[in-house]
Amino acid sequence: MSARGVGLLTYADRLGGDLTGLHGLLDGPLADFSGVHVLPFYTPFDGDDAGFDPIDHTSVDPRLGTWTDVAAIASGREVVADIIVNHVSSSSAEFLDWCARGEASPYDGMFLTLDTVLPDGADEASLTAFYRPRPGLPLTPVAVAGRRRIVWTTFEPTQIDLDLHHPAALAYLDRVVAALVSGGVHVVRLDAVGYAIKTPGSASFMTAATLEYVAALTARLRAAGLRVLVEVHAHHSLQQQIAPLVDLVYDFALPPLLLHGLGTGDVEPLLRWLEIRPENAITVLDTHDGIGVIDAGPAADRPGLIDHEQMRGIFERAARATAGHSAIASVVPQWAELPHQINTTFPSVLDDDAAYLLCRAVQLFLPGEPQIYYVGLLDGRDDVERFRATGVGREVNRHRYEPAEVREALARPVPQAILGLVRLRRDHPAFAGRFSWTRTGPAALRLTWADDDGAARLDLDADLGGASFAIRSTRGGASAVATTALELATIA
Amino acid sequence: MSARGVGLLTYADRLGGDLTGLHGLLDGPLADFSGVHVLPFYTPFDGDDAGFDPIDHTSVDPRLGTWTDVAAIASGREVVADIIVNHVSSSSAEFLDWCARGEASPYDGMFLTLDTVLPDGADEASLTAFYRPRPGLPLTPVAVAGRRRIVWTTFEPTQIDLDLHHPAALAYLDRVVAALVSGGVHVVRLDAVGYAIKTPGSASFMTAATLEYVAALTARLRAAGLRVLVEVHAHHSLQQQIAPLVDLVYDFALPPLLLHGLGTGDVEPLLRWLEIRPENAITVLDTHDGIGVIDAGPAADRPGLIDHEQMRGIFERAARATAGHSAIASVVPQWAELPHQINTTFPSVLDDDAAYLLCRAVQLFLPGEPQIYYVGLLDGRDDVERFRATGVGREVNRHRYEPAEVREALARPVPQAILGLVRLRRDHPAFAGRFSWTRTGPAALRLTWADDDGAARLDLDADLGGASFAIRSTRGGASAVATTALELATIA
Repeated sequence: MSARGVGLLTYADRLGGDLTGLHGLLDGPLADFSGVHVLPFYTPFDGDDAGFDPIDHTSVDPRLGTWTDVAAIASGREVVADIIVNHVSSSSAEFLDWCARGEASPYDGMFLTLDTVLPDGADEASLTAFYRPRPGLPLTPVAVAGRRRIVWTTFEPTQIDLDLHHPAALAYLDRVVAALVSGGVHVVRLDAVGYAIKTPGSASFMTAATLEYVAALTARLRAAGLRVLVEVHAHHSLQQQIAPLVDLVYDFALPPLLLHGLGTGDVEPLLRWLEIRPENAITVLDTHDGIGVIDAGPAADRPGLIDHEQMRGIFERAARATAGHSAIASVVPQWAELPHQINTTFPSVLDDDAAYLLCRAVQLFLPGEPQIYYVGLLDGRDDVERFRATGVGREVNRHRYEPAEVREALARPVPQAILGLVRLRRDHPAFAGRFSWTRTGPAALRLTWADDDGAARLDLDADLGGASFAIRSTRGGASAVATTALELATIA
Repeated sequence: MSARGVGLLTYADRLGGDLTGLHGLLDGPLADFSGVHVLPFYTPFDGDDAGFDPIDHTSVDPRLGTWTDVAAIASGREVVADIIVNHVSSSSAEFLDWCARGEASPYDGMFLTLDTVLPDGADEASLTAFYRPRPGLPLTPVAVAGRRRIVWTTFEPTQIDLDLHHPAALAYLDRVVAALVSGGVHVVRLDAVGYAIKTPGSASFMTAATLEYVAALTARLRAAGLRVLVEVHAHHSLQQQIAPLVDLVYDFALPPLLLHGLGTGDVEPLLRWLEIRPENAITVLDTHDGIGVIDAGPAADRPGLIDHEQMRGIFERAARATAGHSAIASVVPQWAELPHQINTTFPSVLDDDAAYLLCRAVQLFLPGEPQIYYVGLLDGRDDVERFRATGVGREVNRHRYEPAEVREALARPVPQAILGLVRLRRDHPAFAGRFSWTRTGPAALRLTWADDDGAARLDLDADLGGASFAIRSTRGGASAVATTALELATIA
């Protein structure tokens, strides 16, 4: 397993300018990474939802490069790419053709409408039952061949939900998959698939019907030679439920549990999670979507790893650490009291190098496949200006780096320490061995990987008086210890 | 009838600063006006919809003054005030109480919800049948005593539609009426009443049920001593239909017919309108809502005074006259291809003093009760900066004047000419006599008021080579002619 090493999560344009620029970084200063998740590079990569609303999901945006450029990156490392399953752009050729020709269009039936989702009519109960990631209702009026219709739009009004059981939608997804395979992509991430299947009378989020669909889609994708990663932000039990059906899920509970532990000294919830977390997980601290908090919290019908008040504490400490702007940037979904995510960078939310490196160390010491977001790698702070200019909260955590900025950032101690951890995880044979953990104090634990020839050990203490960590690496007869950023940078 | 003279349409704050300031202007430089329509001065006067979304419709915003100030203005002239019939603010005490207490609230049932409007369930056909002044659907999710509900919001999500047949809504409107009567208001304007009654399966705009409601409400308001003015932007036949039921309607067809005539030299549509227009009408060129164009155009099932292409011509000429920004500022309602209104000032849309004064002269020579919008009176041009700052298209036509600006504007020839016309209309006894009109050339007409002692006559020519007008006033033995702004200023 350790052969996989650590992956990078990034936009092509915001880190490298384009695919060629990104490739240069991955072959150069970022060569320690064993894989890369390139966020949507389809046409266009810079729409309303930062690439998650492609007009042509089968093409690489020519401003970024070509499928040959993607394949070139993929020839040296594992490439993860997104499939947007739930919806298509209202500017896609398929949707425009349906709007123009209606029933005469080959895409008639491919899109969900109010009448197809709720064939017996909608009322307040059925409409409000849907689990919603955004405020408002998922309904958007459009004119289709001169008739007034209402299409179903779970996310933005420009993102039209697909009827995934319809042959035209299946054929569409097959075209997308064929394009990804042609670009050498190894892993596909199913974006927001939890919302994909609508079941009247239910919340239509991660229902039995959703799981059934995910299993069927996974079989189809595996047949094309792809590994399948499912993105669901939800109660931790749903990750446990879905993990056996697919190749990979995300461990989205880890970051809020670390923030809770460091903010309160209470590591019990983290310990509970270590006992039950799925191990076929991409571990993350941060992603392009900000820091999920709901993932460790309660659902309506069952307790979470942390409770509502503890979630509130995480948001409040985040607001203090960011001078209030994380509270402004984060969106409260419908019917919720708290945001689902903190829109801030992970370094900003902690505002403490030692605590930040402690979190990265935990991430890289847990079983699974670690992935580091480019802003977190570069120790990036909130891009408040970008948020102000766009009005999109998530943009605080999506800085666009110029080449000189990347060079300067990588030369600093925290990114160097993170790269040291990346190398340790990639190169130390013990990470292919046995994992164990034990509690060593009120807020202290030890995570250990061992094989017959050596061990890699992380000791950490989330004591409120000051968080600390120590990493000890033994291999053959030699051993090394790191308790600071500078030591981490050279431990491997 | 001429005793009524001419009315002014204005915001208290944007012309006079507050009610006292407005009173000073009406007793001073604007003393030629015989009445004033003060746009909503309720609490607050500066909400999302510029006063049409009061939180407390029964109180005068303390920043503007008190009911005593309103009564002081009303003691010297006729005062028109708005009643917002269709909806209440989501921040009103009534709505907040319902949200908090649900069925235990005395206001339970006062607000329309999806289930009360469409009790048999909603589908694409029933929801899209509604005539909509805005894009999107009229549905807004809210939490009511912990239950998820969907309220009906014809205008903005913060404007909750009333169930006008419910006793709590009736009692609410009675409270509003009592407050207006206490302030000495003479005329009430029913804002957007065309949307007030919802009839499933119909467009629910100005239906038979709406007319029935308007008639009943008018009886109720007349019993309180009020005259009733109904605001409906719609096909001209609807004005004809509603005029007999109430005291006053608006002649919203006149401005687009004048713009069409001056822009094309074709006065036929204006002549047709002169034959059939209701005479119990407030005549306008401009209002706070911009220049209605739909009012002269066709409906789905019957021709208009002008056709769709002629409407498009008006919008295109307006865009040229305003360097394109009227096209940007004007909102296209749902399912429509063109905006309903041009968001620009009337002087800006013509950009020609003679043509502008010709239009004012026609307005003041037609039977009815003329009303002049403060921006038009002051020859105001588009406030593009205000539009940019607020993002609200209508704000181009809602400039906020400082006292010095008012003085300077009133000293200029065009406002002085308009005041001359106002005095002529108010003082010349012929305007209480017989009205007649005749065509005098391909694009020329003559409008004449006469009594036994004299006459007031307007000759106009909309010739494309250059619009011109001549006003001749005879009275006893004396006579005067005006063909320029300077002559108009002193004709009375």
